[in-house]
Amino acid sequence: MNILEIINKKRLNKVLTYDELSFAFNGFLKGDVLDYQMSSLLMAIVINGMTLEETINLTDIFIKSGKIFDLSKISDVIVDKHSTGGVGDSTTLVVGPILAAMGIKMAKISGRGLGITGGTIDKLESIPNFNVNLSEREFKKNLKEVGFVDCSQTKDLVPLDKVVYALRSVTGTTESLPLIASSIMSKKIACGANIILIDIKVGSGALIKTKKDAQTLSKWMKKIGGNYNRKVVTIISDMNTPLSSSIGNRLEVEEAIQVLKGEKCRLYETSKEIASLLASLAKKITIEEAEEEVDNIIKSKKAYKKFIEFVEAQGGNLNKLKIDADIKIIRSDKSGTLTKIDAEKIGMLSLKLGAGKITKNDSIDPNAGIKLFKNIGDHINKNDILATLYTNKDIKLSSDDINCFEIN
Amino acid sequence: MNILEIINKKRLNKVLTYDELSFAFNGFLKGDVLDYQMSSLLMAIVINGMTLEETINLTDIFIKSGKIFDLSKISDVIVDKHSTGGVGDSTTLVVGPILAAMGIKMAKISGRGLGITGGTIDKLESIPNFNVNLSEREFKKNLKEVGFVDCSQTKDLVPLDKVVYALRSVTGTTESLPLIASSIMSKKIACGANIILIDIKVGSGALIKTKKDAQTLSKWMKKIGGNYNRKVVTIISDMNTPLSSSIGNRLEVEEAIQVLKGEKCRLYETSKEIASLLASLAKKITIEEAEEEVDNIIKSKKAYKKFIEFVEAQGGNLNKLKIDADIKIIRSDKSGTLTKIDAEKIGMLSLKLGAGKITKNDSIDPNAGIKLFKNIGDHINKNDILATLYTNKDIKLSSDDINCFEIN
Repeated sequence: MNILEIINKKRLNKVLTYDELSFAFNGFLKGDVLDYQMSSLLMAIVINGMTLEETINLTDIFIKSGKIFDLSKISDVIVDKHSTGGVGDSTTLVVGPILAAMGIKMAKISGRGLGITGGTIDKLESIPNFNVNLSEREFKKNLKEVGFVDCSQTKDLVPLDKVVYALRSVTGTTESLPLIASSIMSKKIACGANIILIDIKVGSGALIKTKKDAQTLSKWMKKIGGNYNRKVVTIISDMNTPLSSSIGNRLEVEEAIQVLKGEKCRLYETSKEIASLLASLAKKITIEEAEEEVDNIIKSKKAYKKFIEFVEAQGGNLNKLKIDADIKIIRSDKSGTLTKIDAEKIGMLSLKLGAGKITKNDSIDPNAGIKLFKNIGDHINKNDILATLYTNKDIKLSSDDINCFEIN
Repeated sequence: MNILEIINKKRLNKVLTYDELSFAFNGFLKGDVLDYQMSSLLMAIVINGMTLEETINLTDIFIKSGKIFDLSKISDVIVDKHSTGGVGDSTTLVVGPILAAMGIKMAKISGRGLGITGGTIDKLESIPNFNVNLSEREFKKNLKEVGFVDCSQTKDLVPLDKVVYALRSVTGTTESLPLIASSIMSKKIACGANIILIDIKVGSGALIKTKKDAQTLSKWMKKIGGNYNRKVVTIISDMNTPLSSSIGNRLEVEEAIQVLKGEKCRLYETSKEIASLLASLAKKITIEEAEEEVDNIIKSKKAYKKFIEFVEAQGGNLNKLKIDADIKIIRSDKSGTLTKIDAEKIGMLSLKLGAGKITKNDSIDPNAGIKLFKNIGDHINKNDILATLYTNKDIKLSSDDINCFEIN
């Protein structure tokens, strides 16, 4: 067996065996298969696809590259949630504290930004001193004591996914159903929760472009979860428009805080839907009962307090959370109704401002990002402020770069 | 513009503009685009293809990455030939001296062996002291004085092709019509000849698998050449059977010498076809007239003398050309008619004997190779000698290794 034969097989759209997948991916982890060979194989997988069986096999290879957390001593019911990646999707920062405040334990391992979509780890790291690198012991301790823990993949947990994920984000190989399924499910399973909600984002700004793909992904993830005795539920949600009014790491943390303080906005609605679904499964109550509990836990400020407790337990300092960047204002050049805020273009623009990585060696500026001031359907007057851009980069933006809004 | 947008565009099978191709490929040469990004783009190109216009643009980008030799002061007519890669293909060593002896200048840059196919540079280097690394000045001097020059790619000539080619060979991205076309044509055009013959090999052991692909490649190469005022002619030839009775670097040089001394064999027939076609174009005579001239130039020993002059001009010492290796004899285990000599298997066997590299770190043994004693259609008696193997390696050959002949 050699890597060129395996690459050629997938290039010719043939099915790879468990052993071939293991040779290629574990070889990459060991350094025998080089990054430029793995990226070539990944692109062949992205374009030609993989079968469900290949995806199940790859997920198993991912899981077995590290350890599996056993959280059964902490609670019988541990929930987890995952979003396949959106622009301005900071629901985790809202859902985790809500559930923990309701007494439901949420154990989460998060990732970094991928392509134009932000990553929760990058968002958490934008909080000064926040420690995203926990040991297994610290992870379990915080889960037990705070009820919500969210950290970066530990070295031991699916190390293979870590290196593959990093490579995918800089090689244009993110938009692949089988690669998304195995990356997400391997982490979810290794992390130890037994009720897992996957929020599958569909739309121009999302990794998944069509509802059909989202449905397939949903089916595959449930199948994979079932193989390891995990309850997997999915929601399929629109990602043609950014999920919140803030895009960029520190800006999104600030908006999550506003929601936890009681602000009613789109981010709250989505977070409430997810929190209620998980709460109804965990507590065996109806969705309506769960929704009422969620509303109350926000009103009582218990969720906000839980967020502070969560941040402090991981060393973060919210007092130092300030946006330090140059601000550029984008105004409308005409009057009319705002009919579209293009999530993909907003995502690309935020990358250019420094909120995400274009190459592996780029560094992320936690201050960079975009604040949106109008919602779809709003009437816009000429010269109204549509958005403010935050950046520390000396960049010149073309009209193409800021062409994210459609006004008719 | 950024590399991820460009990769994604090709992943989605869209047409890349000149500027996008330039951004990606020149970026790779400069080091701004990383090897794992280029290999991902290359795989997307291999699977999704490129249009003729993209291929023309990529070729232009390749050419402009370095200098273009201006040979117009040496002669109005300069010919060149190229084979897409064969087993036992030493036609260059025969065609060059024939044409030079006829007063037609042939300027050639050659490559090393790739996979099971031999490279003219490896063959020339098997001649003791032969210098394959010429400066532009030496290249032009030898072309002017000897009439035939053949050396390795200089640093200045299509540097972009050099780095892309190296990456393709280790990432499973070699089998792509547009990438083959732009790689070959950029070198041919930069090298300065104005009449270019491309020998497109088709078969199981060749990069081009089907006659249809060969025809497309032919059409594209002519079109590309036309853009630079070069006359491109192609021949499409079978690579299911080795091209000559000798496979291996020094053995092939020896066979070329025998042909130049007047031996009539398959190598002579192919070389005559190529030489006559080029001569008819260069001298504006009919193919029949050219063929007669080729026969005469061989008979008069002028071509053989020109070969000696060519070798000496590049420092080679033909007196020291001796095969120094252990010999193994392969005899037929049955009687019948020889129906197949499998070029791919012969190529693999010659690699094992040491005639080429299996891994990047292998060294080539100039003595290693295979001599074939029978032709397709010959009647074979049991125990007839089919081939002799030359090697300095202590290898044990299995019946699978020497299973290159079909006798029925």
